[in-house]
Amino acid sequence: MKEKLVIIGASAAGISAAFLAKKLNPEVDILLVRNVPNTPVPCGIPYIYGTLKEVSKNIISDQQLINSGIEIKIGHVTKIEPSSNFIIFDNGEKVFFDKLLLATGSLPFLPPIDGINLKNVYTIKKNPLELTPINDSLKDAKDIVIIGGGFIGVEMSEQIASLKGKAANVTIIEMLPYCLMTACEIDLCVAAEDEMKKLGINILTKSQVVSLSGDQNGNVSSVNLKDGKSLKADLVIIAIGAVPNTELALNSGIEGDKRSGIKVDKFLRTNFNNIYAAGDCVEKFSFVTGEPAPIRLASVAAYEGVIAISNLLGCKLINRGALGAFSTKIGDTALGAAGLTKEQCERANIEYIVGEFTGPDKHPATLPNTVANMKAILIFRKNSGLLIGGHIKGGESTGQMVNIVATAIQARLTVEDLYNMQVATHPLLTGSPVAFHINKAAEDAYIKYIK
Amino acid sequence: MKEKLVIIGASAAGISAAFLAKKLNPEVDILLVRNVPNTPVPCGIPYIYGTLKEVSKNIISDQQLINSGIEIKIGHVTKIEPSSNFIIFDNGEKVFFDKLLLATGSLPFLPPIDGINLKNVYTIKKNPLELTPINDSLKDAKDIVIIGGGFIGVEMSEQIASLKGKAANVTIIEMLPYCLMTACEIDLCVAAEDEMKKLGINILTKSQVVSLSGDQNGNVSSVNLKDGKSLKADLVIIAIGAVPNTELALNSGIEGDKRSGIKVDKFLRTNFNNIYAAGDCVEKFSFVTGEPAPIRLASVAAYEGVIAISNLLGCKLINRGALGAFSTKIGDTALGAAGLTKEQCERANIEYIVGEFTGPDKHPATLPNTVANMKAILIFRKNSGLLIGGHIKGGESTGQMVNIVATAIQARLTVEDLYNMQVATHPLLTGSPVAFHINKAAEDAYIKYIK
Repeated sequence: MKEKLVIIGASAAGISAAFLAKKLNPEVDILLVRNVPNTPVPCGIPYIYGTLKEVSKNIISDQQLINSGIEIKIGHVTKIEPSSNFIIFDNGEKVFFDKLLLATGSLPFLPPIDGINLKNVYTIKKNPLELTPINDSLKDAKDIVIIGGGFIGVEMSEQIASLKGKAANVTIIEMLPYCLMTACEIDLCVAAEDEMKKLGINILTKSQVVSLSGDQNGNVSSVNLKDGKSLKADLVIIAIGAVPNTELALNSGIEGDKRSGIKVDKFLRTNFNNIYAAGDCVEKFSFVTGEPAPIRLASVAAYEGVIAISNLLGCKLINRGALGAFSTKIGDTALGAAGLTKEQCERANIEYIVGEFTGPDKHPATLPNTVANMKAILIFRKNSGLLIGGHIKGGESTGQMVNIVATAIQARLTVEDLYNMQVATHPLLTGSPVAFHINKAAEDAYIKYIK
Repeated sequence: MKEKLVIIGASAAGISAAFLAKKLNPEVDILLVRNVPNTPVPCGIPYIYGTLKEVSKNIISDQQLINSGIEIKIGHVTKIEPSSNFIIFDNGEKVFFDKLLLATGSLPFLPPIDGINLKNVYTIKKNPLELTPINDSLKDAKDIVIIGGGFIGVEMSEQIASLKGKAANVTIIEMLPYCLMTACEIDLCVAAEDEMKKLGINILTKSQVVSLSGDQNGNVSSVNLKDGKSLKADLVIIAIGAVPNTELALNSGIEGDKRSGIKVDKFLRTNFNNIYAAGDCVEKFSFVTGEPAPIRLASVAAYEGVIAISNLLGCKLINRGALGAFSTKIGDTALGAAGLTKEQCERANIEYIVGEFTGPDKHPATLPNTVANMKAILIFRKNSGLLIGGHIKGGESTGQMVNIVATAIQARLTVEDLYNMQVATHPLLTGSPVAFHINKAAEDAYIKYIK
């Protein structure tokens, strides 16, 4: 009889695992279970509310899964029976598995404040049915408040402000001194905020929401801040992070913690030999520091999906931890970050040396559409010279340049490896060979090392 | 007394060396000697004849060199006296050096055919005085023939055809079956040729020029091919490669070969202890194979400039060889290549496994301006799984994506490292986290490995 592999969850971790499983072993029967009619592209969600305009344009097609011979089942699993190898659906249906991968993802974090159940208050859930009402509410909204200045909050504000222009008053509220500060160096945060300001977005940093108030119809009407201020609001979007979706696992005897996630070993195996877990639902540690780190990203989920499914099918791949590699584009400025910020180094008591370089993203800079001030900031461990963080701002090529940094961190390259690395350069596509951002930022750090 | 460092040549190798020397040791006196009034951006030269329109827009400014305290001297050095540490100019002037870096670059290869001295027959020299006449001749030219389908020839043809449109008949002649074939996989060559055809360029591959004919005024009038055909031509550009510029070195007792270049040890030192050499003038070997390889690129020159100057000033950096990392953009398609092609593997008797992936460069692919068929081709050594080549075609992000490959080759990453690498992904900037081109091409190869 064919081996039956069940995957619960069909976003980044589940999908990457399902595809790879079929390639590793075409003989295995794969059932991919999800509790949503179809899967939105997770990172594309903000773009529904601006560039794409429709939820339906941000859906991962099932066709490729089906073509690969992967069976898809839509349903809500309420219980796993690890002893008898069954999953049980809310309609009572039971499905047998030989091997199980949990990829149940995360849920929006809900702040413990009054008013979050008012009408026109939304969180961002990876469910098309929950994403569409936001689009409907946006049509008439005039005073839009986004709570949370992380990537999703910033991208949502940028998209909504671009779409609505002067027809709406868009405000973003962030507790920290800058938006995006948990992932990016301050230079990048400032660049993002500058672009947001150009779009007319009101940015309230160092601000904390204490409650939401409503009108007599139960619609949200204002957002109340800790400093006593109150903002008029007819649409509120809460985007202050995600918590691992562990309910099913914890209810089924699978070990874990509802804040940090499902507990796994280095192979991403749970406390049951034939049950593995991957993605946002799993506890995380940093690739760089080895310490616990709540890095919940689609790219980490895809990585873990690959590790977990390979091991479920007989390999012994070790989870090296979550890198934390991000990119985004706000207005005309793209930003990318991989690994640690200076602030994260300080909190972790890691001594570091920083190298920086600013220069044009094309050469000569007389070429049309040159971004003159593309900037790279590289952070190295002071003791070993290992690259542990990199932050880029510039034009669209930032999105792949930060992946040079991500690759270099994972390859454990040092300041010496990087300042004399050979790269492809071209007038229309990159900085010059004598002023390539990564090399020059590494050189800047290297000079500090040898002094 | 301050140490006197003389650098002969002020293109990629000389400039990168001069800047780094001042950083490594601000106390050293640096004289940068060149025999041209100013230095064109080498890779920018084709764009003079289209996008930029003027030679003056493609010049490396001296200001930054001067600001760094680097002295620039324009003159023609005719002899080096290694025994007495002097360089001698054509006007008899002698300049003392403690240490000397030769970065004399390369010269266009001239084919041994009749007619190359006719009027309106040009080669591409890194000298503004020699680049301007081409621009002048282009104005009235109607039948333009470019000999050589490497990067410079292809870019020149693309720029000239874009600029002149139907006012000219542009033909490119290449001996090999495809343009760009010495650096790129066939898929990329075909993509480039398709873009060239869209611009109306006539492409004659597998074609060899045997002579040029002229009219009674000494102007070129036709290009004659080996197969007997003759092409009407009032402007001919010869771009069939470069030879190391070794005359000065060889005339001064510095060892080398006029075809392969100045002979250097692993520190880029010549047969004289205080004379080093870097860039196109130096003999080359492949980073990947360790075998001699005529890889003459600005990025390699910049790399060697860094190695040589560091060693001249007391370090012991080892030259790891020339990677060969290229990128370009032809029409709307960008191409990038790093390391070996399949054909080069075969010629070197290296067994290999190839992984490929084609997917959109944004996600979801419904986003505006998505390039649907961005393609990555990765080549791994069959025995070790080491990455030894990568070839990308797609949109402009190709230019940095190929540098992920370049970094991975230099970091000596394997197929296993790459198929589960974490990268930053973003809807507007990259493919999806479950379909990132590099990872997926590596996965494709990995599946072949384990079968």
